[in-house]
Amino acid sequence: MAEKLRIALAGLGTVGAGVIRLLAENGELISRRAGREISITAVSARDRGKDRGVDLSGYAWEDDMTLLAARDDVDVVVELVGGSDGPAVALARTALAGGKNLVTANKAMVAHHGLELAGLAEANGVSLRYEAAVAGGIPAIKGLGEGAAANRIERIYGILNGTCNYILSEMEATGRDFGDVLSEAQSLGYAEADPTFDIEGIDAAHKLAILAALAFGTKLDFAAVDVSGISRIRAADIGQARALGYVIRLIGLADCAADNGDRHLFQRVAPYLVPLRHPLAGVSGPTNAVVAEGNFSGRLLFEGAGAGDGPTASAVVADIIDIARGNVLPPFSLPVDTLQDSAPADPGNRRNRAYVRFMVADRPGVLAEITAAMRDAGVSIESFIQKGQEEDGDEPVLVAMVTHDGPEGSVTKALDLLQGSASLVEEPLVMRLLG
Amino acid sequence: MAEKLRIALAGLGTVGAGVIRLLAENGELISRRAGREISITAVSARDRGKDRGVDLSGYAWEDDMTLLAARDDVDVVVELVGGSDGPAVALARTALAGGKNLVTANKAMVAHHGLELAGLAEANGVSLRYEAAVAGGIPAIKGLGEGAAANRIERIYGILNGTCNYILSEMEATGRDFGDVLSEAQSLGYAEADPTFDIEGIDAAHKLAILAALAFGTKLDFAAVDVSGISRIRAADIGQARALGYVIRLIGLADCAADNGDRHLFQRVAPYLVPLRHPLAGVSGPTNAVVAEGNFSGRLLFEGAGAGDGPTASAVVADIIDIARGNVLPPFSLPVDTLQDSAPADPGNRRNRAYVRFMVADRPGVLAEITAAMRDAGVSIESFIQKGQEEDGDEPVLVAMVTHDGPEGSVTKALDLLQGSASLVEEPLVMRLLG
Ligand SMILES: NC(=O)c1ccc[n+]([C@@H]2O[C@H](COP(=O)([O-])OP(=O)(O)OC[C@H]3O[C@@H](n4cnc5c(N)ncnc54)[C@H](OP(=O)(O)O)[C@@H]3O)[C@@H](O)[C@H]2O)c1
Ligand SMILES: NC(=O)c1ccc[n+]([C@@H]2O[C@H](COP(=O)([O-])OP(=O)(O)OC[C@H]3O[C@@H](n4cnc5c(N)ncnc54)[C@H](OP(=O)(O)O)[C@@H]3O)[C@@H](O)[C@H]2O)c1
Repeated sequence: MAEKLRIALAGLGTVGAGVIRLLAENGELISRRAGREISITAVSARDRGKDRGVDLSGYAWEDDMTLLAARDDVDVVVELVGGSDGPAVALARTALAGGKNLVTANKAMVAHHGLELAGLAEANGVSLRYEAAVAGGIPAIKGLGEGAAANRIERIYGILNGTCNYILSEMEATGRDFGDVLSEAQSLGYAEADPTFDIEGIDAAHKLAILAALAFGTKLDFAAVDVSGISRIRAADIGQARALGYVIRLIGLADCAADNGDRHLFQRVAPYLVPLRHPLAGVSGPTNAVVAEGNFSGRLLFEGAGAGDGPTASAVVADIIDIARGNVLPPFSLPVDTLQDSAPADPGNRRNRAYVRFMVADRPGVLAEITAAMRDAGVSIESFIQKGQEEDGDEPVLVAMVTHDGPEGSVTKALDLLQGSASLVEEPLVMRLLG
Repeated sequence: MAEKLRIALAGLGTVGAGVIRLLAENGELISRRAGREISITAVSARDRGKDRGVDLSGYAWEDDMTLLAARDDVDVVVELVGGSDGPAVALARTALAGGKNLVTANKAMVAHHGLELAGLAEANGVSLRYEAAVAGGIPAIKGLGEGAAANRIERIYGILNGTCNYILSEMEATGRDFGDVLSEAQSLGYAEADPTFDIEGIDAAHKLAILAALAFGTKLDFAAVDVSGISRIRAADIGQARALGYVIRLIGLADCAADNGDRHLFQRVAPYLVPLRHPLAGVSGPTNAVVAEGNFSGRLLFEGAGAGDGPTASAVVADIIDIARGNVLPPFSLPVDTLQDSAPADPGNRRNRAYVRFMVADRPGVLAEITAAMRDAGVSIESFIQKGQEEDGDEPVLVAMVTHDGPEGSVTKALDLLQGSASLVEEPLVMRLLG
């Protein structure tokens, strides 16, 4: 057997403690699979005294986690701290620049600094691996970067945030409203005290930008992701969608068109209506799923737990095993200096069917106003649902419609025409149908 | 860039021609991903004159495909001929023994000779890769052997044969009977002229035995797979299952129990009743899916096309790219001489719910006879369906029941008690419920 592989863990929270438990419980099997022993030599976190339910007595402790990267008895630094900037990225830079392999679960950091870190890894002949950063325990990075490597990827999409998927599934199952289900999710630990990153789609956008770079060989461009979250979805939207044969899921979706050598990268995180017969419609609760459409493979789907200590640790340790086995790849599958520039694709010409929902004052002429705007913008309406209003006439009324297939720009134009209308009591909500 | 990787293709049928098309169409991208050019230097098939829709003029031709393994201008031999024995295995042995990497899509060969070939590969320091042999275009071998490598696998199961899944889905969608749908599948090219390997579960058993060795670190033991096929399933069984909230799928399933160091390997291919809410219930047509349950990852699911020239070529070329990248692993994840012996698990003690269907002569006392046998064997019946008989009293009647959870041995005993009964006009059909 080769020499043992020595690990330093930065961060001993949910994932860090999970990694320690995993290596303790499956260690013997892992060493056999990796062809060498994998052992933790040093750890760091904020609070040395905290009880983490795992025995740390065999490991050296560093108060300053950046010092993990300087230790002679460390081959791989595992960053499980989090945050797009601050100590995590300082540690990552120091480790890679110092010739140590880096494994991370930190999607925010990879989304913001992935190219720089990949450059450091390649320049220093070490690995940067981040399987756990996207879709938790699912080997989606491996599936895409290695399993589907023979393909030109035509589209990549998936359910990338377990918190949103849990909330939407609960709303669906119980008919309750967003705020109500969110509070419950927080008390159950499925949502953070500050849920913004999850429910506004930012966490999913981090993951989508990473997947897109890997799938299309383009430079990672998180800033260009078109992001909307789920906080404006009402129970009534879910009911309407259901009646039409759809469920609502927060989907991250990307594709890339080449036009005379110019690449137009489309990246969007938004709630979509997913047809009930689509495999993503059955993905409920905190489960994640990633779909890659290759030009030879056809549709590949990877599904599993999107978060949690066990699944995330499983992905982190899979990366460590790959390093132990000597499986060294450029972090984004292609050498980072060959990743291509792209411009954000203009969504206006994309063709879609869309669900458009208005909350309107219940007074004469409202429907005529909406339908006239649709007509003037060239939007053709496939079905129209006005939800009757039960009580007195002062309550706003929900009006929803599904459009025929058409350019997104037409729907935008129709909504522009309605801008400022006194009939609309809130901003209309547009959700595309997943095709 | 490293030196180019030189490929010899043995077999230029569906998959072989697909590989040539794939390398032609995606070659530039693949070379960038692999870090080196991948080029075919020599090919072989039976009939040199056959038009295969691809241009072979740039490649050397060998009439005797074993000679591909002796060529100096070949680094990887790709075996796409098929057959568990004969020329394919002769080529594989010669290639590996001669220090050439081998990529194969041949599940029959790997199921029968995988251990011997893995031993040759390891002894000669080369790769043996067989991603395309299991579940077509889905990177399930990689997902299990690398993506889930940190886990003790508790169970592995899936839909491993596209022909059977197509037939069952068609029977379900149309209410037609097995023979009818099979003939149609044959005329559409979804089933072979001799469909035995597919419909009797042997092809799925080849794949299951490979997955089991990889998942549990046991010696490949194809002969121990308990196999039944789908040819006895009637339209009425599918209807009954549906009414109970299930669909019928041919499932390959394996688990491995350790008992004082003795390993009991359970491997079964059989039609199962799959609950409608289970992700495998939505897998229809020729799609395949593999589920691995890891002790940390939880349930991982990989889904995609189980066959076809494009998907299968995608998996073959993924293996070639791995070789080009230098990702060398023991073929069964662990060194072959450390794979463990196992005894076939006794299914009698496994607990299951089961669907049991009888075709009975419609005469007094039949139900009493069946229920008495069940009672005497200790089988507790959860629901009982006697399908009324429409026409005259001479037609056999279908009687089906679902048992409560209980040992398989009890159901076997009940059927033993009924053996030879004049009331039964054919052998009863037992299908377990996937739990
Ligand atoms: N949780 C999941 O299911 C999951 C899934 C996928 C990816 N991830 C990613 O994994 C990473 C870790 O997540 P987590 O859920 O494990 O977070 P967590 O439970 O909050 O743990 C964070 C750890 O980092 C330590 N830490 C924070 N700031 C530090 C500093 N300045 N110096 C040293 N240590 C510091 C904390 O120390 P103390 O314990 O001493 O406070 C704690 O041990 C994040 O990037 C996250 O996005 C998590
Ligand atoms: N088809 C799929 O979707 C699929 C999916 C997964 C795995 N596989 C596996 O892939 C392998 C190939 O399948 P396939 O569908 O491509 O089969 P195929 O279309 O029947 O092609 C077989 C090829 O092997 C050649 N061949 C047969 N015997 C030979 C011999 N003695 N010497 C030299 N060449 C010989 C044939 O030559 P001629 O063309 O000259 O007759 C033909 O080119 C099999 O192991 C199969 O199980 C297939």
